[in-house]
Amino acid sequence: MELPSQILQKAVEQFNTLPGIGKKTAMRLVLHLLRQEESDVNEFSQALLRLKTDLKECRECHMASDDHLCMICQDRHRNRAQICVVQDIQDVMAIENTMQYRGLYHVLGGLISPMDGIGPDQIKIEDLLRRVSIETPEEVIFALSANMEGDTTAFYISRQLKDINIRVSVLSRGISVGGQLEYADEITLGRSIHLRTPYQA
Amino acid sequence: MELPSQILQKAVEQFNTLPGIGKKTAMRLVLHLLRQEESDVNEFSQALLRLKTDLKECRECHMASDDHLCMICQDRHRNRAQICVVQDIQDVMAIENTMQYRGLYHVLGGLISPMDGIGPDQIKIEDLLRRVSIETPEEVIFALSANMEGDTTAFYISRQLKDINIRVSVLSRGISVGGQLEYADEITLGRSIHLRTPYQA
Repeated sequence: MELPSQILQKAVEQFNTLPGIGKKTAMRLVLHLLRQEESDVNEFSQALLRLKTDLKECRECHMASDDHLCMICQDRHRNRAQICVVQDIQDVMAIENTMQYRGLYHVLGGLISPMDGIGPDQIKIEDLLRRVSIETPEEVIFALSANMEGDTTAFYISRQLKDINIRVSVLSRGISVGGQLEYADEITLGRSIHLRTPYQA
Repeated sequence: MELPSQILQKAVEQFNTLPGIGKKTAMRLVLHLLRQEESDVNEFSQALLRLKTDLKECRECHMASDDHLCMICQDRHRNRAQICVVQDIQDVMAIENTMQYRGLYHVLGGLISPMDGIGPDQIKIEDLLRRVSIETPEEVIFALSANMEGDTTAFYISRQLKDINIRVSVLSRGISVGGQLEYADEITLGRSIHLRTPYQA
Protein backbone atom coordinates (compact mmCIF):
# COMPACT_ATOMS: atom_id res chain seq x y z
CA MET A 1 0.00 0.00 0.00
CA GLU A 2 1.63 3.21 -1.25
CA LEU A 3 0.51 6.14 0.88
CA PRO A 4 0.22 9.66 -0.58
CA SER A 5 1.97 11.12 2.47
CA GLN A 6 5.46 10.35 3.76
CA ILE A 7 4.44 11.29 7.29
CA LEU A 8 1.51 8.88 7.21
CA GLN A 9 3.68 6.21 5.58
CA LYS A 10 6.32 6.51 8.32
CA ALA A 11 3.79 6.18 11.13
CA VAL A 12 2.16 3.14 9.51
CA GLU A 13 5.54 1.51 8.96
CA GLN A 14 6.44 2.03 12.61
CA PHE A 15 3.25 0.35 13.88
CA ASN A 16 3.83 -2.37 11.32
CA THR A 17 7.12 -3.28 13.03
CA LEU A 18 5.22 -4.30 16.19
CA PRO A 19 4.49 -8.01 16.66
CA GLY A 20 1.02 -9.02 15.45
CA ILE A 21 0.29 -5.64 13.80
CA GLY A 22 -0.20 -5.95 10.04
CA LYS A 23 -0.40 -3.11 7.53
CA LYS A 24 -4.18 -2.72 7.64
CA THR A 25 -4.21 -2.70 11.43
CA ALA A 26 -1.28 -0.26 11.46
CA MET A 27 -3.23 2.03 9.15
CA ARG A 28 -6.29 1.79 11.39
CA LEU A 29 -4.24 2.69 14.48
CA VAL A 30 -2.63 5.66 12.72
CA LEU A 31 -6.02 6.95 11.56
CA HIS A 32 -7.28 6.59 15.11
CA LEU A 33 -4.38 8.70 16.37
CA LEU A 34 -5.03 11.27 13.62
CA ARG A 35 -8.48 11.81 15.08
CA GLN A 36 -7.09 12.42 18.58
CA GLU A 37 -6.06 15.74 20.10
CA GLU A 38 -2.46 16.82 19.61
CA SER A 39 -1.88 16.70 23.38
CA ASP A 40 -3.01 13.05 23.51
CA VAL A 41 -0.70 12.00 20.68
CA ASN A 42 2.07 14.00 22.30
CA GLU A 43 1.50 12.07 25.54
CA PHE A 44 1.60 8.75 23.66
CA SER A 45 4.82 9.76 21.96
CA GLN A 46 6.39 10.82 25.27
CA ALA A 47 5.35 7.60 27.00
CA LEU A 48 7.21 5.60 24.35
CA LEU A 49 10.28 7.78 24.55
CA ARG A 50 10.48 7.46 28.34
CA LEU A 51 10.58 3.67 28.01
CA LYS A 52 14.14 4.00 26.77
CA THR A 53 15.27 7.25 28.37
CA ASP A 54 13.82 7.05 31.90
CA LEU A 55 13.03 3.41 32.58
CA LYS A 56 15.77 1.72 34.61
CA GLU A 57 16.62 -1.85 35.48
CA CYS A 58 16.60 -2.70 39.19
CA ARG A 59 20.21 -3.33 40.19
CA GLU A 60 19.10 -6.19 42.45
CA CYS A 61 16.48 -8.19 40.57
CA HIS A 62 16.75 -6.66 37.03
CA MET A 63 13.06 -5.84 36.98
CA ALA A 64 12.01 -2.77 34.98
CA SER A 65 11.90 0.08 37.45
CA ASP A 66 11.51 3.85 37.79
CA ASP A 67 14.45 3.86 40.24
CA HIS A 68 17.75 2.02 40.55
CA LEU A 69 16.01 -0.20 43.10
CA CYS A 70 12.54 -1.46 42.13
CA MET A 71 9.42 -1.14 44.26
CA ILE A 72 9.50 -4.84 45.18
CA CYS A 73 13.15 -4.84 46.27
CA GLN A 74 12.51 -1.62 48.21
CA ASP A 75 9.47 -3.06 50.00
CA ARG A 76 10.44 -3.91 53.62
CA HIS A 77 7.37 -6.13 54.00
CA ARG A 78 8.53 -8.61 51.35
CA ASN A 79 10.02 -11.91 52.46
CA ARG A 80 13.72 -11.63 51.68
CA ALA A 81 14.31 -15.32 52.31
CA GLN A 82 12.70 -16.23 49.00
CA ILE A 83 13.92 -15.48 45.48
CA CYS A 84 11.65 -16.38 42.61
CA VAL A 85 13.57 -16.83 39.35
CA VAL A 86 11.66 -15.77 36.24
CA GLN A 87 12.41 -15.27 32.58
CA ASP A 88 10.99 -11.85 31.95
CA ILE A 89 9.31 -8.74 33.32
CA GLN A 90 5.80 -9.91 32.43
CA ASP A 91 6.32 -13.08 34.48
CA VAL A 92 6.87 -10.96 37.59
CA MET A 93 3.66 -9.13 36.88
CA ALA A 94 1.74 -12.35 36.26
CA ILE A 95 2.89 -13.74 39.63
CA GLU A 96 2.21 -10.46 41.42
CA ASN A 97 -1.34 -10.56 40.10
CA THR A 98 -1.97 -13.89 41.84
CA MET A 99 -1.23 -12.17 45.20
CA GLN A 100 0.12 -15.55 46.41
CA TYR A 101 3.78 -14.63 46.68
CA ARG A 102 5.47 -12.09 48.96
CA GLY A 103 9.14 -12.86 48.33
CA LEU A 104 11.64 -11.26 45.96
CA TYR A 105 12.32 -11.94 42.29
CA HIS A 106 15.22 -12.42 39.94
CA VAL A 107 14.60 -11.62 36.28
CA LEU A 108 16.94 -13.66 34.07
CA GLY A 109 16.08 -11.74 30.93
CA GLY A 110 15.82 -14.94 28.90
CA LEU A 111 16.25 -18.71 29.07
CA ILE A 112 19.15 -20.94 28.07
CA SER A 113 18.45 -21.94 24.48
CA PRO A 114 21.23 -23.60 22.48
CA MET A 115 18.95 -23.50 19.41
CA ASP A 116 18.88 -19.69 19.56
CA GLY A 117 22.52 -19.49 20.62
CA ILE A 118 21.66 -18.26 24.12
CA GLY A 119 24.05 -19.70 26.71
CA PRO A 120 24.17 -19.28 30.50
CA ASP A 121 26.43 -16.23 30.12
CA GLN A 122 23.88 -14.26 28.11
CA ILE A 123 21.29 -14.25 30.89
CA LYS A 124 21.56 -13.08 34.52
CA ILE A 125 22.56 -16.43 36.07
CA GLU A 126 26.00 -15.35 37.34
CA ASP A 127 24.31 -12.43 38.99
CA LEU A 128 21.72 -14.69 40.63
CA LEU A 129 24.46 -16.93 42.05
CA ARG A 130 26.29 -13.90 43.43
CA ARG A 131 23.03 -12.64 44.95
CA VAL A 132 22.34 -16.02 46.56
CA SER A 133 25.85 -16.15 48.05
CA ILE A 134 25.53 -12.63 49.50
CA GLU A 135 21.89 -12.52 50.58
CA THR A 136 21.75 -16.22 51.60
CA PRO A 137 18.01 -16.71 51.06
CA GLU A 138 16.34 -19.89 52.33
CA GLU A 139 14.71 -20.76 49.07
CA VAL A 140 15.07 -20.28 45.33
CA ILE A 141 11.88 -20.88 43.35
CA PHE A 142 12.01 -21.59 39.62
CA ALA A 143 9.00 -19.99 37.94
CA LEU A 144 10.05 -20.65 34.35
CA SER A 145 8.05 -21.67 31.32
CA ALA A 146 7.27 -25.41 31.26
CA ASN A 147 9.19 -26.09 28.07
CA MET A 148 12.65 -27.28 27.07
CA GLU A 149 14.35 -23.91 27.59
CA GLY A 150 12.76 -23.45 31.02
CA ASP A 151 13.75 -26.97 32.10
CA THR A 152 17.31 -26.53 30.79
CA THR A 153 17.72 -23.24 32.61
CA ALA A 154 16.34 -24.63 35.90
CA PHE A 155 18.61 -27.66 35.57
CA TYR A 156 21.69 -25.52 34.94
CA ILE A 157 21.03 -23.21 37.89
CA SER A 158 20.14 -26.05 40.26
CA ARG A 159 23.51 -27.64 39.47
CA GLN A 160 25.27 -24.41 40.39
CA LEU A 161 23.34 -24.27 43.67
CA LYS A 162 24.02 -27.95 44.55
CA ASP A 163 26.78 -27.24 47.05
CA ILE A 164 24.91 -24.47 48.83
CA ASN A 165 22.50 -25.35 51.64
CA ILE A 166 19.38 -23.90 50.06
CA ARG A 167 15.91 -25.15 49.26
CA VAL A 168 15.33 -25.21 45.52
CA SER A 169 11.75 -25.56 44.34
CA VAL A 170 9.84 -25.35 41.11
CA LEU A 171 6.26 -24.35 40.29
CA SER A 172 3.93 -27.34 40.48
CA ARG A 173 3.09 -28.69 37.06
CA GLY A 174 -0.41 -27.41 37.12
CA ILE A 175 0.77 -25.23 34.27
CA SER A 176 0.13 -26.90 30.95
CA VAL A 177 3.33 -28.43 29.55
CA GLY A 178 4.69 -26.50 26.60
CA GLY A 179 2.75 -23.39 27.59
CA GLN A 180 4.10 -19.90 28.11
CA LEU A 181 4.04 -18.70 31.71
CA GLU A 182 2.48 -15.33 30.96
CA TYR A 183 -0.67 -16.92 29.48
CA ALA A 184 -1.47 -19.11 32.49
CA ASP A 185 -4.65 -18.06 34.32
CA GLU A 186 -4.26 -16.51 37.76
CA ILE A 187 -5.80 -19.38 39.74
CA THR A 188 -3.59 -22.03 38.13
CA LEU A 189 -0.53 -19.84 38.53
CA GLY A 190 -1.37 -18.95 42.14
CA ARG A 191 -1.98 -22.60 43.07
CA SER A 192 1.24 -23.65 41.41
CA ILE A 193 3.18 -21.30 43.67
CA HIS A 194 1.49 -22.79 46.76
CA LEU A 195 2.01 -26.39 45.62
CA ARG A 196 5.60 -25.92 44.50
CA THR A 197 7.61 -29.13 44.80
CA PRO A 198 11.29 -29.82 45.61
CA TYR A 199 13.38 -29.52 42.46
CA GLN A 200 14.66 -32.81 41.06
CA ALA A 201 17.15 -32.57 38.28
CA MET B 1 -2.85 -5.40 36.20
CA GLU B 2 -0.89 -3.13 38.55
CA LEU B 3 2.58 -2.51 37.13
CA PRO B 4 5.57 -1.91 39.40
CA SER B 5 6.75 0.98 37.23
CA GLN B 6 4.87 4.18 36.44
CA ILE B 7 6.76 4.55 33.17
CA LEU B 8 5.78 1.05 32.07
CA GLN B 9 2.23 1.61 33.27
CA LYS B 10 1.91 4.83 31.24
CA ALA B 11 3.16 3.21 28.04
CA VAL B 12 0.81 0.23 28.45
CA GLU B 13 -2.13 2.54 29.13
CA GLN B 14 -1.37 4.51 25.98
CA PHE B 15 -1.34 1.42 23.76
CA ASN B 16 -4.49 0.27 25.55
CA THR B 17 -6.32 3.38 24.27
CA LEU B 18 -5.89 2.18 20.67
CA PRO B 19 -8.83 0.34 19.08
CA GLY B 20 -8.57 -3.44 19.34
CA ILE B 21 -5.55 -3.36 21.68
CA GLY B 22 -6.30 -4.92 25.08
CA LYS B 23 -4.13 -4.77 28.18
CA LYS B 24 -2.23 -8.01 27.51
CA THR B 25 -1.50 -7.00 23.92
CA ALA B 26 -0.49 -3.51 25.06
CA MET B 27 1.93 -5.08 27.53
CA ARG B 28 3.37 -7.30 24.80
CA LEU B 29 3.91 -4.32 22.48
CA VAL B 30 5.59 -2.31 25.24
CA LEU B 31 7.91 -5.20 26.10
CA HIS B 32 8.75 -5.50 22.42
CA LEU B 33 9.70 -1.82 22.32
CA LEU B 34 11.76 -2.25 25.50
CA ARG B 35 13.91 -4.76 23.65
CA GLN B 36 14.51 -2.35 20.74
CA GLU B 37 17.34 0.15 20.40
CA GLU B 38 16.75 3.63 21.79
CA SER B 39 17.10 5.12 18.30
CA ASP B 40 14.30 2.87 16.98
CA VAL B 41 11.92 3.80 19.79
CA ASN B 42 12.88 7.43 19.27
CA GLU B 43 11.97 7.12 15.59
CA PHE B 44 8.62 5.53 16.48
CA SER B 45 7.91 8.32 18.94
CA GLN B 46 8.81 11.00 16.39
CA ALA B 47 6.67 9.41 13.68
CA LEU B 48 3.63 9.66 15.98
CA LEU B 49 4.38 13.23 16.93
CA ARG B 50 4.70 14.32 13.32
CA LEU B 51 1.20 12.99 12.61
CA LYS B 52 -0.17 15.96 14.54
CA THR B 53 2.57 18.55 14.08
CA ASP B 54 3.59 18.15 10.42
CA LEU B 55 0.76 16.34 8.66
CA LYS B 56 -1.51 18.74 6.80
CA GLU B 57 -4.92 18.47 5.21
CA CYS B 58 -5.09 19.15 1.46
CA ARG B 59 -6.95 22.43 1.04
CA GLU B 60 -8.69 21.05 -2.06
CA CYS B 61 -9.74 17.48 -1.27
CA HIS B 62 -9.04 17.29 2.52
CA MET B 63 -6.81 14.27 2.07
CA ALA B 64 -3.96 13.88 4.57
CA SER B 65 -0.93 15.47 2.96
CA ASP B 66 2.65 16.57 3.57
CA ASP B 67 1.88 19.86 1.80
CA HIS B 68 -1.06 22.24 1.64
CA LEU B 69 -1.92 20.60 -1.67
CA CYS B 70 -1.83 16.79 -1.74
CA MET B 71 0.09 14.70 -4.27
CA ILE B 72 -3.10 13.71 -6.07
CA CYS B 73 -4.42 17.29 -6.45
CA GLN B 74 -0.93 18.39 -7.57
CA ASP B 75 -0.70 15.64 -10.21
CA ARG B 76 -1.26 17.21 -13.65
CA HIS B 77 -1.96 13.79 -15.17
CA ARG B 78 -5.07 13.21 -13.09
CA ASN B 79 -8.49 13.66 -14.70
CA ARG B 80 -9.88 16.85 -13.19
CA ALA B 81 -13.33 16.22 -14.64
CA GLN B 82 -14.03 13.54 -12.03
CA ILE B 83 -14.43 13.94 -8.29
CA CYS B 84 -14.76 10.79 -6.23
CA VAL B 85 -16.49 11.44 -2.89
CA VAL B 86 -15.26 9.25 -0.03
CA GLN B 87 -15.73 9.10 3.70
CA ASP B 88 -12.19 8.89 4.92
CA ILE B 89 -8.49 8.89 4.10
CA GLN B 90 -8.24 5.11 3.99
CA ASP B 91 -10.96 4.97 1.32
CA VAL B 92 -8.76 7.10 -0.97
CA MET B 93 -5.92 4.68 -0.44
CA ALA B 94 -8.13 1.65 -1.04
CA ILE B 95 -9.29 3.10 -4.39
CA GLU B 96 -5.76 4.19 -5.36
CA ASN B 97 -4.62 0.60 -4.78
CA THR B 98 -7.06 -0.67 -7.42
CA MET B 99 -5.27 1.54 -10.03
CA GLN B 100 -8.66 1.86 -11.78
CA TYR B 101 -9.29 5.52 -11.12
CA ARG B 102 -7.34 8.57 -12.29
CA GLY B 103 -9.64 11.40 -11.20
CA LEU B 104 -9.63 13.55 -8.08
CA TYR B 105 -11.11 12.90 -4.64
CA HIS B 106 -13.11 14.65 -2.01
CA VAL B 107 -12.76 13.39 1.55
CA LEU B 108 -15.90 14.14 3.56
CA GLY B 109 -14.33 13.19 6.87
CA GLY B 110 -17.43 11.27 7.91
CA LEU B 111 -20.96 10.35 6.87
CA ILE B 112 -24.31 11.84 7.80
CA SER B 113 -25.50 9.87 10.80
CA PRO B 114 -28.47 11.20 12.79
CA MET B 115 -27.93 8.38 15.31
CA ASP B 116 -24.47 9.71 16.11
CA GLY B 117 -25.60 13.33 15.86
CA ILE B 118 -23.59 13.96 12.68
CA GLY B 119 -25.43 16.29 10.33
CA PRO B 120 -24.47 17.59 6.86
CA ASP B 121 -22.74 20.61 8.44
CA GLN B 122 -20.24 18.48 10.36
CA ILE B 123 -18.72 16.94 7.23
CA LYS B 124 -17.20 18.60 4.16
CA ILE B 125 -20.36 18.72 2.01
CA GLU B 126 -20.61 22.52 1.74
CA ASP B 127 -17.01 22.51 0.60
CA LEU B 128 -17.72 19.85 -2.03
CA LEU B 129 -20.61 21.89 -3.45
CA ARG B 130 -18.41 24.98 -3.60
CA ARG B 131 -15.71 22.94 -5.34
CA VAL B 132 -18.19 21.57 -7.88
CA SER B 133 -19.49 25.05 -8.67
CA ILE B 134 -15.97 26.44 -9.18
CA GLU B 135 -14.21 23.51 -10.87
CA THR B 136 -17.30 22.34 -12.80
CA PRO B 137 -16.29 18.67 -13.12
CA GLU B 138 -18.27 16.39 -15.45
CA GLU B 139 -18.90 13.72 -12.88
CA VAL B 140 -19.23 13.20 -9.16
CA ILE B 141 -18.78 9.58 -8.05
CA PHE B 142 -20.08 8.42 -4.67
CA ALA B 143 -17.70 5.84 -3.23
CA LEU B 144 -19.29 5.55 0.19
CA SER B 145 -19.87 2.56 2.42
CA ALA B 146 -22.92 0.53 1.41
CA ASN B 147 -24.83 1.12 4.61
CA MET B 148 -27.48 3.49 5.89
CA GLU B 149 -25.08 6.36 6.58
CA GLY B 150 -23.46 6.06 3.14
CA ASP B 151 -26.84 5.98 1.41
CA THR B 152 -28.13 8.95 3.42
CA THR B 153 -25.05 11.00 2.62
CA ALA B 154 -25.19 10.18 -1.12
CA PHE B 155 -28.92 11.02 -1.15
CA TYR B 156 -28.35 14.36 0.57
CA ILE B 157 -25.52 15.42 -1.75
CA SER B 158 -27.33 14.26 -4.89
CA ARG B 159 -30.26 16.48 -3.93
CA GLN B 160 -27.93 19.46 -3.62
CA LEU B 161 -26.49 18.69 -7.07
CA LYS B 162 -29.92 18.21 -8.70
CA ASP B 163 -30.01 21.63 -10.36
CA ILE B 164 -26.47 21.44 -11.70
CA ASN B 165 -25.79 19.76 -15.03
CA ILE B 166 -23.46 17.06 -13.78
CA ARG B 167 -23.31 13.29 -13.99
CA VAL B 168 -23.72 11.72 -10.56
CA SER B 169 -22.76 8.06 -10.21
CA VAL B 170 -22.31 5.54 -7.45
CA LEU B 171 -20.08 2.49 -7.09
CA SER B 172 -21.77 -0.61 -8.50
CA ARG B 173 -23.18 -2.76 -5.77
CA GLY B 174 -20.59 -5.44 -6.16
CA ILE B 175 -19.60 -4.42 -2.68
CA SER B 176 -21.38 -6.49 -0.08
CA VAL B 177 -24.27 -4.55 1.42
CA GLY B 178 -23.60 -3.45 4.98
CA GLY B 179 -19.86 -3.81 4.50
CA GLN B 180 -17.17 -1.25 5.19
CA LEU B 181 -15.47 0.14 2.08
CA GLU B 182 -11.93 -0.28 3.38
CA TYR B 183 -12.32 -4.05 3.77
CA ALA B 184 -13.46 -4.70 0.18
CA ASP B 185 -10.91 -6.65 -1.89
CA GLU B 186 -9.12 -4.77 -4.64
CA ILE B 187 -10.72 -6.60 -7.58
CA THR B 188 -14.26 -6.04 -6.33
CA LEU B 189 -13.51 -2.43 -5.55
CA GLY B 190 -11.78 -1.84 -8.89
CA ARG B 191 -14.62 -3.45 -10.82
CA SER B 192 -17.19 -1.42 -8.93
CA ILE B 193 -15.50 1.77 -10.11
CA HIS B 194 -15.65 0.57 -13.73
CA LEU B 195 -19.26 -0.57 -13.49
CA ARG B 196 -20.52 2.50 -11.64
CA THR B 197 -24.17 3.23 -12.37
CA PRO B 198 -26.16 6.50 -12.65
CA TYR B 199 -27.24 7.56 -9.20
CA GLN B 200 -30.95 7.16 -8.50
CA ALA B 201 -32.19 8.75 -5.30
